[in-house]
Amino acid sequence: MKFGFIGFGEVSYTLSKLLLALDFEILSSIEGRSQKTIDLINSLDLTLLDSFKDVAKESDVLISANSPDIALDIAKNYGNLTNGFFLDFNNISPKTVFEIEDILSDDKFIDSAIIGRVNSDELNIYLSGSKAQFLLDKIKKEIGSKGIDINKMDFKINVKLISDKIGDVSKLKMLRSSYTKGVSALLVESFELAEKLDLEEELWEILSLTENRDFERSSKSRIDSSKKASKRRYEELVEVLYFLDNVDNVDESKIMARATKDKFEYLKNRENKE
Amino acid sequence: MKFGFIGFGEVSYTLSKLLLALDFEILSSIEGRSQKTIDLINSLDLTLLDSFKDVAKESDVLISANSPDIALDIAKNYGNLTNGFFLDFNNISPKTVFEIEDILSDDKFIDSAIIGRVNSDELNIYLSGSKAQFLLDKIKKEIGSKGIDINKMDFKINVKLISDKIGDVSKLKMLRSSYTKGVSALLVESFELAEKLDLEEELWEILSLTENRDFERSSKSRIDSSKKASKRRYEELVEVLYFLDNVDNVDESKIMARATKDKFEYLKNRENKE
Repeated sequence: MKFGFIGFGEVSYTLSKLLLALDFEILSSIEGRSQKTIDLINSLDLTLLDSFKDVAKESDVLISANSPDIALDIAKNYGNLTNGFFLDFNNISPKTVFEIEDILSDDKFIDSAIIGRVNSDELNIYLSGSKAQFLLDKIKKEIGSKGIDINKMDFKINVKLISDKIGDVSKLKMLRSSYTKGVSALLVESFELAEKLDLEEELWEILSLTENRDFERSSKSRIDSSKKASKRRYEELVEVLYFLDNVDNVDESKIMARATKDKFEYLKNRENKE
Repeated sequence: MKFGFIGFGEVSYTLSKLLLALDFEILSSIEGRSQKTIDLINSLDLTLLDSFKDVAKESDVLISANSPDIALDIAKNYGNLTNGFFLDFNNISPKTVFEIEDILSDDKFIDSAIIGRVNSDELNIYLSGSKAQFLLDKIKKEIGSKGIDINKMDFKINVKLISDKIGDVSKLKMLRSSYTKGVSALLVESFELAEKLDLEEELWEILSLTENRDFERSSKSRIDSSKKASKRRYEELVEVLYFLDNVDNVDESKIMARATKDKFEYLKNRENKE
């Protein structure tokens, strides 16, 4: 069973490393890649083909883990060429997911996501689609036939099948995004106001009493990335809201999500001015 | 050193219990109290006086732990009568705190709060005011002189002095309220949308991956109390916004707080209709 990767970033690198440890053959290509990506690819024991078209043709499982804006084109250009399954791990909206389903049909396409951190100690993979269970069983069987006990590896891959419906993984990502980015927006706002009152340290302390133990560290990282990536967060929230408007057309059902979008728009514009 | 309580609810009960364990004399009165409160008072070994006026006159530390709407009257009627310190534990805005300071002066008045759960295992008390440190030292000295080792008690009282400025404890409570109620509003909204998509269970699961370990239990309790107490939450947010408008007059600095208020207003009105 051969896994092919179109593009090669952080997600592809981590997935490849884990799949290599499980003794799978990994296909990719350095066609048109930057020197940085070529170095990354060369650090692993991959099978390199001349072109991504060849990768698509020879893969049993073709993985697209790139950026949202090229996800649809990759599905069109390479998903159509493969005889294997096509897994999209990009951060795309349900709308784009359904467009890909239209192109490839759910016989081939599996809606996929990594939730939480992408690292090689523990990885949480979510799948939906009519063939997701079939693919999972096939992979497990092949791992078993090699005599590999996956529980004894020094990493953990948690794979969760959400449903047999394409789009459900992507919907979950939207809901998650709406919540976590809302918390980030709240954090930015509360601590900027606390700063004005010279009560920042004290606010960290009293919130840590009732929030989680790791609250200050994890929240500071949320604030930091919210400010740094405010433009991208804003764009993601535009997508989230577009999606939520279809879920519920009552304005009051989206007060917090809309405010989160407005907050990131403000942070984005403020950042531009500085 | 005698501690007097005006009114007798959950906070007074818990504080009295801990102070009794530290061998302090506790004064209160059953004047005009309900049978329920009288039973609560009688369950502890308190010194009962004929009236709350007598309690005020004889206390070295007079504690007001009632409801926000009567806090100012209590400060006027009883705070003025005592020769001891007056501690206000009510959930009042900085505006009301400053009104009390005007009446009593910060020689007598100490801005006080319990942060987090009120229970007799562990209690987090926050104080601010020019005499707060003096009072703390006096209490510690008296405990020490009785030969009591507070570290060996089966409860923990964490007392934190925020600053020597009246109002700082109350400001912190406002900021905390703005953040935690914002999170509650986000939770209500995200899970109502997830319910519409039939992805509630899955959303709990993926958020628990990156939020705290206890996320589902604590968040469900937040959702529950947000819906039950939406009217009160809304009123609190009105106070919070009134306060924040004075901290920063730029609208965008309060996008999330304003949305939180709007969300609770919506929940309150929806509750009324049902």
